Amino acid sequence: MTGKAEIVCTGSELLAGKLNLYVPLFHERLSPLGFEIIREQSSGDSLEAVRDCLAGALRRADLVLACGGLGPTFDDVTRQAAAAALGRRLVHSKACERILSFNYGLKLLPPNFKDQCLIVEGAKTLENTHGTAFGQVLTRGRKMLVLLPGPRREWEPMFPNFLEEELRSFFKLPGLRQVKLRAAGLWETQAERLLRPVMRRHKDLRFTILAGPGTVDFIILGGDARGAVEKAAAACRRLLGVHLYGEGEATPASALGARLKAAGRTAAGAESCTGGLAAELITDIPGSSAWFNGAAVVYSNAAKTRLLGVRPATLKKHGAVSPECARELAEGARRAFGSDYAYSVTGIAGPDGGSAGKPVGLVYFGLAGGRGTKVFRRKFPGGRQFVRACAANFILDELRKVIK
Amino acid sequence: MTGKAEIVCTGSELLAGKLNLYVPLFHERLSPLGFEIIREQSSGDSLEAVRDCLAGALRRADLVLACGGLGPTFDDVTRQAAAAALGRRLVHSKACERILSFNYGLKLLPPNFKDQCLIVEGAKTLENTHGTAFGQVLTRGRKMLVLLPGPRREWEPMFPNFLEEELRSFFKLPGLRQVKLRAAGLWETQAERLLRPVMRRHKDLRFTILAGPGTVDFIILGGDARGAVEKAAAACRRLLGVHLYGEGEATPASALGARLKAAGRTAAGAESCTGGLAAELITDIPGSSAWFNGAAVVYSNAAKTRLLGVRPATLKKHGAVSPECARELAEGARRAFGSDYAYSVTGIAGPDGGSAGKPVGLVYFGLAGGRGTKVFRRKFPGGRQFVRACAANFILDELRKVIK
Repeated sequence: MTGKAEIVCTGSELLAGKLNLYVPLFHERLSPLGFEIIREQSSGDSLEAVRDCLAGALRRADLVLACGGLGPTFDDVTRQAAAAALGRRLVHSKACERILSFNYGLKLLPPNFKDQCLIVEGAKTLENTHGTAFGQVLTRGRKMLVLLPGPRREWEPMFPNFLEEELRSFFKLPGLRQVKLRAAGLWETQAERLLRPVMRRHKDLRFTILAGPGTVDFIILGGDARGAVEKAAAACRRLLGVHLYGEGEATPASALGARLKAAGRTAAGAESCTGGLAAELITDIPGSSAWFNGAAVVYSNAAKTRLLGVRPATLKKHGAVSPECARELAEGARRAFGSDYAYSVTGIAGPDGGSAGKPVGLVYFGLAGGRGTKVFRRKFPGGRQFVRACAANFILDELRKVIK
Repeated sequence: MTGKAEIVCTGSELLAGKLNLYVPLFHERLSPLGFEIIREQSSGDSLEAVRDCLAGALRRADLVLACGGLGPTFDDVTRQAAAAALGRRLVHSKACERILSFNYGLKLLPPNFKDQCLIVEGAKTLENTHGTAFGQVLTRGRKMLVLLPGPRREWEPMFPNFLEEELRSFFKLPGLRQVKLRAAGLWETQAERLLRPVMRRHKDLRFTILAGPGTVDFIILGGDARGAVEKAAAACRRLLGVHLYGEGEATPASALGARLKAAGRTAAGAESCTGGLAAELITDIPGSSAWFNGAAVVYSNAAKTRLLGVRPATLKKHGAVSPECARELAEGARRAFGSDYAYSVTGIAGPDGGSAGKPVGLVYFGLAGGRGTKVFRRKFPGGRQFVRACAANFILDELRKVIK
């Protein structure tokens, strides 16, 4: 079912402090087409190094994607390296020249635009809707080498517009289907145990489980022919039940937003240990102002009392990290923001502040609505950031579940 | 000055959707020692593939760091691959066995612990303070291969505790010094222009500029002998002036916190378009509750009025994205939280909501203190997330500057 793919990323910045964000993105695009990435190489901008990476990749893989190094400056060497790896010449493309002249309204191309018209002999070109570097598709025997420009906004449109069809027809790919189910409120091992029967029953499909902070993604990939992927997905949806918050690109916050929007309701929040993280995840969604009124980040006890009316007696008797405080925070936020629902988070994110009775990772939550208030208690593992992320995802998802 | 290093990361998850966060971290540790990373390879868990990556890296580089694949399960193959690449045997280490027995208080090691005592013939071992996999240092001629366990919390302590000394003595490294200056409130190109005279004067040093959202890092690296790095850093500090918020691991939020703590003052905030991001960056810092009271995420107009007393007339006349609203938000937050200082952010993060007069990226800020209120206006480029991140960093840094 799968072809072997390799990725070659060029650019010395990738070896000097910049994160390589592209490998997961290429995986996401190649996987539904049936390619498995077997190796990734990042190299600096030396012609010799890039040629060596490409030549090695072409020996091992069916498909090689090279990203970056197609610009017009001296340190852009991917064209030359690809020509050397294939033993071919670079030639001037009249077609590329015409396209650039037209796109930029130029009668005479400046020299650096002319360089952009050099292609490896025999290349098919992929038009770039956001820049001057053409993508190039090269084949040798049963192998394919694809050269892509470095910036994401330049290469990304090439996939649906041109490249997928090239890959399908050259590799005679069977139709594949992928479903990505997203769940919260259970751990990776729980998800695996829960879904194991489906995996056993569908040995012809590929299943991947990816864990996040308090979330689990479940990806099903396989041949489209007999509806097997859809059958397996339906079974998984039943097993995941209320834990399934969405599919594809959904997040706990976007799923919550969709639910609130559909119900015509609004929400607000009160955050202590998450310090605004849940609100930040919510407001990261364009248009969230339609269903989110805001949140009070009440880090000090005085703020809990002044902004949300938490009683000093509650804080004195039970402490800020308590079910009683979580309840008053949620109810106070609902009142202060005038929203239909409100969440609250109060806990010990660490690394300091823990005790035997209230260890680091202990978090209380409240959910206030028209029918009363629910309180939750959870203990999360890991460091400060992981605890905060788990807590934010937990309460966003619990809020989603109660909306009527 | 520099030796050549290569990184080999093993683990099929790196080719199946997981970000490789480690290459920048290795760069950060190897760079001050004088190593330049010339290539990075990620491969799945096949013995043949890992052996091939290691052998290639050993041909090209002086130092090869392999990360991952040292666990006790069947898909951990780095030990075997390293032995094969060097043409050596795997041997049982009595010393490792004694250390594991002692660390875990076991008289008899279980079988999977015994596997962890296999080392490549001739390896020096690096003790693991957070797991059972030993690091291994192997040398051949003038080259060194280092095997590190995959999890960051396991390999990270090995650097200062054992590995740096191994590298220094084997490669006879000259003392190098690195200074990392962190600035905000100016763009990458401005920083470059400002600091160019220093770079020209110190051609023997290496300068790196890294841009973040509204921030610029400036890294100076060079021989420690004649104090050149310190001289260049001092000149840069003078040129950066008030833009310099910190050095090393400082962030705009941590620099603000240090200033507030030193002054014995507290802060709070009001956030509209940043939706809690500034508060999240602040509360990400352990112990921030000592100087941060909280923030009101007032996304709706009603919340701005109810929680922070913004006058409906102001909203009606000038809109929520206005200097007038920014002023009232900051003053309202200062009052509501009873803090010495308060910041406010209100703007249009996009992608929707912009107009000719108030385009996407336009943000107003307020800073309220005992001596009155300042208002700022900025227009940031880029998408929703970039605008929000720029806005949060901007106001955290402006707040730092006004604290007396």
